[in-house]
Amino acid sequence: MRAAIYQEPREITVEEVPDVTVESPTDAIVRVTHTAICGSDLWFYRGESDREAGSRVGHEPMGLVEAVGEDVTSVDVGDRVFAPFVISCGYCEFCRKGLHTSCANGDSWGGENGGCQGEQIRVPQADGTLVRVPDRHADDEDTLEALLPLTDVMGTGHHAAVSAGVEAGDTCVVIGDGAVGLCGVLAARRLGAERIVAMGHHEDRLALAEAFGATETVAARGDEAVERAKELTYGGTNHVLECVGAASAMDTAIEVCRPGGTVGYVGVPHGVDDEGLDVFSLFSDNITLQGGVAPVRAYAEELMADVLGGTLDPSPIFTKTVDLDGVPEGYRAMDEREAIKVLVKP
Amino acid sequence: MRAAIYQEPREITVEEVPDVTVESPTDAIVRVTHTAICGSDLWFYRGESDREAGSRVGHEPMGLVEAVGEDVTSVDVGDRVFAPFVISCGYCEFCRKGLHTSCANGDSWGGENGGCQGEQIRVPQADGTLVRVPDRHADDEDTLEALLPLTDVMGTGHHAAVSAGVEAGDTCVVIGDGAVGLCGVLAARRLGAERIVAMGHHEDRLALAEAFGATETVAARGDEAVERAKELTYGGTNHVLECVGAASAMDTAIEVCRPGGTVGYVGVPHGVDDEGLDVFSLFSDNITLQGGVAPVRAYAEELMADVLGGTLDPSPIFTKTVDLDGVPEGYRAMDEREAIKVLVKP
Repeated sequence: MRAAIYQEPREITVEEVPDVTVESPTDAIVRVTHTAICGSDLWFYRGESDREAGSRVGHEPMGLVEAVGEDVTSVDVGDRVFAPFVISCGYCEFCRKGLHTSCANGDSWGGENGGCQGEQIRVPQADGTLVRVPDRHADDEDTLEALLPLTDVMGTGHHAAVSAGVEAGDTCVVIGDGAVGLCGVLAARRLGAERIVAMGHHEDRLALAEAFGATETVAARGDEAVERAKELTYGGTNHVLECVGAASAMDTAIEVCRPGGTVGYVGVPHGVDDEGLDVFSLFSDNITLQGGVAPVRAYAEELMADVLGGTLDPSPIFTKTVDLDGVPEGYRAMDEREAIKVLVKP
Repeated sequence: MRAAIYQEPREITVEEVPDVTVESPTDAIVRVTHTAICGSDLWFYRGESDREAGSRVGHEPMGLVEAVGEDVTSVDVGDRVFAPFVISCGYCEFCRKGLHTSCANGDSWGGENGGCQGEQIRVPQADGTLVRVPDRHADDEDTLEALLPLTDVMGTGHHAAVSAGVEAGDTCVVIGDGAVGLCGVLAARRLGAERIVAMGHHEDRLALAEAFGATETVAARGDEAVERAKELTYGGTNHVLECVGAASAMDTAIEVCRPGGTVGYVGVPHGVDDEGLDVFSLFSDNITLQGGVAPVRAYAEELMADVLGGTLDPSPIFTKTVDLDGVPEGYRAMDEREAIKVLVKP
């Protein structure tokens, strides 16, 4: 089969690689029909985080089951399925409490499981990992494109909103106008937030934030942005969704948070090592820091129900579509911010 | 009147200073009968935080009302009262939500209000700040010594337990065997925790932790301590009370916290600037960081009810008593860890 391979910063190639096969009775083999390029893929693409040369990439799979191990009971050959960016068993303590990212039997994409930006993947713990799309929706292209973000960014935006404690009637601020921030707006609206202030740097993305339910947007930078957000929230909000994953964004999140409020964060906190986290502001204002890597598997069923019911559609975040050969071009377009998020149809 | 004055690291003197007077209609004047030296006073005493030479010290006042401004309605001359380590109005947004440390009209001890390690203080916002001890208990020395920790360390330990999410039946780990950690044990027991693992470095203090309700203690240091605590909690606990306020203790707290758990922290996080906070562990394990400077005023009435009812007595943390002239010796004894906490009777 063919798959996208990381070679070095800013070089992704598509190569012939060995097929994956069922190796354990709990494995499934999935032919990838839809996947995506993630903002978090840009960290290694830009050389800002390490990745082994020659490794397969991609972690947002949707496709058709081609084979199952003998112990797999929840999916069968021919089913349309998708899976989150981590593999989880579904029955350990952490999966039972909805923290699939800490699964005691967990694993990740890449390596011998195959990267999801490729033709096939092996899915360990298939019963726990895979989410089956009901047959009546399994071939509807619009529905599939609306479901694909549930593999990562939609679940992650939802985790930011849940972690920030957003409930019906609340006012919240969403930091970041990338795919996760935009999904955070959708999630906050879905949870009933009354006012959603979206902060970002790109007018076109903030326009999409408004279409997704943001009641106000702030396009300024630095202190001016913080001042404007505090003005809009009469001194700060109790619920901040930090959807960037950078030290500067975390600082902004803490600054716009009202004393006693909560920052829900879901971005890998890059740069915090060098610049430090403003623990003193957290401490003096009793601001709670809640969140982390999003257990999107925990949210898959409830978000899928809304997508299938027609009340949730994150697919407008896909502003470019490529085939497998177009993956390198997809990375380039995201790196240069030409595309918010790239849909890949291998 | 006479009051304790900070001169330079490791030098506290007792000096004649001007009397305080009612300056605003919401002021009260309190003659201090009981106060204490706080572990947090040791930061400036040891030169580890800045403090102006010549400034008055102490922030844990209990005493008798000597005068009140014309707008004060909740206390009167002759009442026995105590007050938290911050001044708060009681009616602003933040006081109403129990976050008196963020009071919109707040102030602090020291400066022109007088330090509490002295004969008299002026209490701004007296109606909001002062807690009145019911008359029938107002002259019972044992009761007063049990109430005094409600000005700071007992309320702070309680805030750690509440912030860590401790509820009836829970298992928790308390980091620190100082006065706050010991009060954290009392608070966790009071909230119904089933298992309380106290971690510290002093056998005598850990013995007191056991008397206060700790079911297990860990006296080891470093990795060995973390391993032991994780063993006792089958891999980590969901509720950690960080009662030290140092980067190393915060690291320990994060290490013994179970994925998805909560670290309740209440110590001024010294050293975090230099050593950084392990945000990556928080992130990857979805550990919530909750707490901050404790709004002890919010907890005063409920904790006082228990002290007066005979079910709560933190007074054993006072292992040494001095008069006003003995304050410098009190600092020395705490600095050299001869005393857990020093009671001062000016």
